[in-house]
Order: sequence, then structure tokens, then C-alpha cells
Amino acid sequence: MVRASLVGAILANLLLALGGSFLAGGLRFHDQRFNPTAARTYSTMMFLAAISMTVPSAFSRLFAPGAVIPQTQFLNLGIAGMLLIAYGLYVLYSLKTHSSSFTSVESEHSVNDKEEHWGLPRAVGSLVFASVLAAWMSEILVGAAEATGKTLGMSQVFIGIVFLAIVGGAAESGSAIAMARKNKMDLSVGIALGSCIQIALFVAPLLVFASYFIAPHPLDLSFGRAEIGSLFMAVLIGAMVAGDGQSNWFKGVQLITVYAMIALMFYLIPAIAE
Amino acid sequence: MVRASLVGAILANLLLALGGSFLAGGLRFHDQRFNPTAARTYSTMMFLAAISMTVPSAFSRLFAPGAVIPQTQFLNLGIAGMLLIAYGLYVLYSLKTHSSSFTSVESEHSVNDKEEHWGLPRAVGSLVFASVLAAWMSEILVGAAEATGKTLGMSQVFIGIVFLAIVGGAAESGSAIAMARKNKMDLSVGIALGSCIQIALFVAPLLVFASYFIAPHPLDLSFGRAEIGSLFMAVLIGAMVAGDGQSNWFKGVQLITVYAMIALMFYLIPAIAE
Amino acid sequence: MVRASLVGAILANLLLALGGSFLAGGLRFHDQRFNPTAARTYSTMMFLAAISMTVPSAFSRLFAPGAVIPQTQFLNLGIAGMLLIAYGLYVLYSLKTHSSSFTSVESEHSVNDKEEHWGLPRAVGSLVFASVLAAWMSEILVGAAEATGKTLGMSQVFIGIVFLAIVGGAAESGSAIAMARKNKMDLSVGIALGSCIQIALFVAPLLVFASYFIAPHPLDLSFGRAEIGSLFMAVLIGAMVAGDGQSNWFKGVQLITVYAMIALMFYLIPAIAE
Repeated sequence: MVRASLVGAILANLLLALGGSFLAGGLRFHDQRFNPTAARTYSTMMFLAAISMTVPSAFSRLFAPGAVIPQTQFLNLGIAGMLLIAYGLYVLYSLKTHSSSFTSVESEHSVNDKEEHWGLPRAVGSLVFASVLAAWMSEILVGAAEATGKTLGMSQVFIGIVFLAIVGGAAESGSAIAMARKNKMDLSVGIALGSCIQIALFVAPLLVFASYFIAPHPLDLSFGRAEIGSLFMAVLIGAMVAGDGQSNWFKGVQLITVYAMIALMFYLIPAIAE
Repeated sequence: MVRASLVGAILANLLLALGGSFLAGGLRFHDQRFNPTAARTYSTMMFLAAISMTVPSAFSRLFAPGAVIPQTQFLNLGIAGMLLIAYGLYVLYSLKTHSSSFTSVESEHSVNDKEEHWGLPRAVGSLVFASVLAAWMSEILVGAAEATGKTLGMSQVFIGIVFLAIVGGAAESGSAIAMARKNKMDLSVGIALGSCIQIALFVAPLLVFASYFIAPHPLDLSFGRAEIGSLFMAVLIGAMVAGDGQSNWFKGVQLITVYAMIALMFYLIPAIAE
Repeated sequence: MVRASLVGAILANLLLALGGSFLAGGLRFHDQRFNPTAARTYSTMMFLAAISMTVPSAFSRLFAPGAVIPQTQFLNLGIAGMLLIAYGLYVLYSLKTHSSSFTSVESEHSVNDKEEHWGLPRAVGSLVFASVLAAWMSEILVGAAEATGKTLGMSQVFIGIVFLAIVGGAAESGSAIAMARKNKMDLSVGIALGSCIQIALFVAPLLVFASYFIAPHPLDLSFGRAEIGSLFMAVLIGAMVAGDGQSNWFKGVQLITVYAMIALMFYLIPAIAE
């Protein structure tokens, strides 16, 4: 269930939140622009995340099918460690050494009206507080959603990958879309893709480490072929769509169509299969 | 046979017609330019098409091997419906809301000499008439080609995916190449990729729907791994090559080389295998 | 062993040498630029190379598992022939017809200080001489490395794909990194990716041909799924990272992280598996 919700959260943010933002923003503005350098960094990080999930998945399917061998566990811990280092360096890169590459393309000539600049401690403090609050609220939501989903006859896989992800990520999707409606596309893309990256490169490896030391049984990053395939298709189309720093309503339609196809597939997977 | 010719038509248009245009145009002009925004839209649509074929293929291979289960049929109809909606919105996008993104980069400063602007009814009428005529002629051609191919000892797969596609698409490839020779690259790319998109996102889903209501047995969009793999490789290299809005003779060589490798593979697939 | 070192050399050059250059250069300069047209040509050539390895691998796995059928051999020879033609045309393209697309973006406004322009015979002569010398030295190195690796308990696969590739490519990686430190990014990218292309599109097909006429048993280009998967992930992330003609230290980190994950996977593959 934890693994399914990781994949689900990435798919929902990358396709649904980003697609919704492009669509909602594009219905109001003819063309919107955002920082292509930042968008390309996000795409590459997402691709890195997809690779980090593919490698252990392929490894256990090809070399240790059905069995848990020590190598699998070592590979999972090793990759989790690498992801945490990469994420730490990404934070350093995006906030410190190259923060100028992430500035909004719009802010250059206007805005800046009411935004007071927070100090680092206040910014970090608010971020941590808001994250904990969001996690707690989404915990409650998720419990309710799981029960609802079961009542509606959804399969376990669909609840994990699609339904929970939409419910749990509603706050982020909502704010990404709201920002797009205000033509603040850099913020919108940053929320949608930034939270993807955080989940895949920070939350997921932390969970792996935690599972080895706290949880009853270790969590590994190995996913089924349907999940990995969906992830790669999502990351590649996300990179194609966002790579030129422009958006319009039809790009939103493209992303949402891909999400709808993937969601339909997970909806129809027979219960026996997993 | 229908499925094989769908894949074949896409491969032939994307690799052979586009590659031939780049090569033929590039032998005459040192560098040619076309509208990169339009090319990127085409690439994304092609990727969408590839996903729409991968999802049902992977689904039936992973979750219902050998059997036809109701879910597979529902998935096929659902995806066909989504493709038709996406194609409708694509027409709206490219002809109505963002038609300016598809204008030729050359036409901005010259040309416009003899082209009279047709009204919508006349344009649509001609298009329908020409399509019907082309379909009828390619029907005749295809029948002849099939017989020829069998006489030459070609396997069923090769005839479907390579031979028929080249013969059936000769008219389009020819006009794409002719346009490239006249340095009208936007038209050339539009013909080659536009017809790909039409086949994959309009003709294919229509056939699926028709098969459920008219044909003796339902057609699904599930393909073998060789077809899907070829399609993804073609779409990705097409996106890489066309993404920057420039072409030269060597880009044509690259596309044609990929086509030759894929065609050789399909030629050599043993008859027993399919 | 030969096949493993082909894949290994490509991975090491594409991820480690390029990543090292971006990192080393980026630690000294805030942002570095190189010719994006050249980088995109390299990416497409690498993708062509990856396809040329995938097609025979997939063919023998799907249609002739376990057996050697005449079709496999014919496919290998055919693809090797196509690669040699494509490589020949690539040399013509990059040195003759479009050499201006490969000029350094920096050299336009400065440099040109001490570099005397060599004539074609001298340039080709030096290149051949240096290549032979490098091949001979790396032969010696590789022998020593293989023995060392075995002593250290590395598996055959890891020695072939990771260890030998790093040792054998140390000279190239070193010079790519040295050029990046001098802010000559075009040279650096050219060394790292140029040697990849040479291996994949010139050395590999030559070896195939040679194996059919000289060697005791034919060499084919069919690889395992782990190798092909790694190759595609490397080529795609390389294309994403290098496509915009800019580099910084974090792009180097991304490439090196991917290499580390892949190397760890090959390190852990159980000896039984291959």
C-alpha cells in the first residue's frame, strides 16, 4: 500500500496537477510562460526518480524472482542513500548556488507587490509546520477515502494508486491550479513538480531507511511492471510537454488524457492479478 | 492485418516520410527550418498515440494472457473514446485557438504568391473527397501489393508492417518529399506527422468502435512487443530529431537508418513466431 | 566479455566522463555553455546506437530464445553494415558538410591562440597513431585490471561492465574533465560523447564483421535486459541533460548518481544469473 501510494502521488502530481494547471490557466490566458531551465531540472529529477524505482524493480524481477536475497536489500538501501544525497545536493543547488535559475520569468518585470521576504529560519519553520499539518490532515482524509473506495467496489490497486493519490494530493493540486489561474506559472509548476520530487527523492528513501530500522518488515522500492511503465510514460511526456517553458490549454488536455488512460488501466486490473 | 498496418503506417510516416523529406530537402538546402512549436505538438501527440497502444497491449499481456476478459474490451473502448476526444480537441486547438502556432516559419516573410485562401466548406469538402479517393486507390494498391509480397516470399508480418505501409503511404511520402525539395518544411513535416497523428488518434479508435458494432469480432489495440518497442523507439527519435525546428540531410539519414533496422527485423521474424 | 565492455564503455563515457566534466567544470564556473546543436547530434547518434543494440537483443530473446538461427546472424550483419554506413555519413556530416555546426560556442569570440590548423593527412595520421597507442595501453591496463578485480572478488559482469570501462576509459575521462576545468566545454563534451559514438557505431559493428570472418565463433549484438535497460536510461538522461547546451555542477551530480545506481546494480547481480 505504501509503495502504491508513492507511485500514485507521483502520477497524480505530474499528470493531473500539472495538466489541470495548464488547462485551467490556458482557458484564461492564451499562452503562459514559465522558466524552462527550472522545468528541465524538474524533468531530469523526475527521470532520476523513475530510474531509482526501475533499477531495484528490474533487479528483483530478473535476478531474484519470488525470493528475498541479501543483494536486493543492499541495493535498496544503497539506492535510497544515493537518492537522499542527490536530494540534499538538489536543495543546495536550487536554493543556494543556482537559485537564480529558478526565479520566475514573470517576476522580472512586475509583481513583487505584497510578498515580504521571509528569513531562512521562518521559512523552514513554516514549511515543516505546514508539512506536518498537511500530512496529518491527509492521514485522516486517506482513512476516510480508503473506506469509501472499498464501499464503491474499487480494487486495492486502484485505491492505492489513483483514488488515494487524488484525495491526498487535492490540496497541492488545488493550489497549483489556483496559481495557474493567476498566471503565476512558475509557482504552479514548482508546486506540482516540486512535490513529486520531494516524494520520490526524499520521502521514499526515508521510508526505506525507516522500514529497515523501525518497521516490522523492510520496504523495498520494487514495483510491478504496470507501475514502472506508467511512471516512465508520465515522466517522458511531462518532460516533452514542459521542456520549452510554454503552456496552453491543450498541453493540459494531453497530460490529463494520459492520466485518464493510466487510471482506467489500474481500475480494470483484475483483483486476482496483484 | 489491420493492426499491423496501423503500426506500419505510423512507422513509415514518422521515419521514412519524415526522413526522406529531411534527406531530400537537405541535399538541396544546407539547413532548413520549420516551426518548432508545431513539431513539438506533433511529437507529443505521437507519444500520446504510442501510450494509447502500449496500455492495452501491456494490460492484456500482463493481466489476461491468452484470454479475452471483459476488462480488456472495456479498456479498449475507453481508450478509443479518450483518443477521439483528444483528437477532436487537437483539431480545435490546431485550427482554431492556436492556429498561429502552426503557421509556417518561412511564410512570414515571403511566399503567399499563388495560394488562394479556400473557405472552410470548400477545404473540408476537398479534404473528404481526396481522402476517399486516396483510400480507394490505396485499397487497390494494397491488394496488388499483398499478392506481390506473397509471391516474393515475404512473411505476413513484414507485408503488413513494412511493405503495405510503404506502398499505401507512397502518395503522402511523395508529397512530403516534394514540399521539402521546395523548402516548404512546415508543410512537409505537417504532411508526414499529421498523417501519423490522424491514423493513430482518429482512424485507429474509429476502427475499434466500428469493430464492436459492425465487424464480426472486436478489434483491440493490443500489439506484440516488437511492434510496441519499434513504435516507442520511432516516436522518441522523431521527437529528438524534430524538436529543435531544424533539419539537414544527416537527420534524414538517422531516421531512415532506424527505419531500415526495424524493417530488417520484421523481415527476419520467423513465420512461426506470430 | 567483449559485449560487456562495449556497454560498459558507453555507460562510463556517457554518464561518468560527461558527469565528471560537468561537475569539475561547474565547481569552477557558475554556468558553462556548449554548442547545443552538436550536443543534440551526439544524443541522437547515441540513441541510434542504443536502438542498434536493442533490435538484435529483443529479436533473439523474443523469436529465437536459446537457439542460434540463421536470421539472427543475418540481422546482426545487416545492422552492423547499416551502422558502419551511418558512421561514415556522420563523419562526412560532422567534418565536411556541417562542420560549422560543431564549432565551439566559446571560440567565436576568443581563444584561437596557439592552435595551429592541421592538414587532413596529418590529423588523420595522428588520430590513427594515437588510437593504436591508446588501444595497446588499455590492453595492458585491462589485463592488469581484470586480475585485480578477480582478486577483489568482483563478479565477471561487474568487471566487464564497470571496472574495466572505468580503467580503460580513464585517459578519455581525464582529458574530458581537464577540458571542462579550462571552460572548453565543447571539447569536453566532444571527447566524452564522441568516444561513445565511435565505440558504438564504429568499433562494435567492425567487431561483428571481424568475428564472422576471423574469430572462432560469431559475435552478435544481443545483450541482456539489464544492459539494454541501463543503456536506454543513460541515453535518455544524457539527452535531457545535454540538450540545452548548458551545464552546471548539479547536472554532473545527476549523471554520476545514475551511473552509481547502475554500477551498484551490476555489482550485486548474483554470479549465478549470467
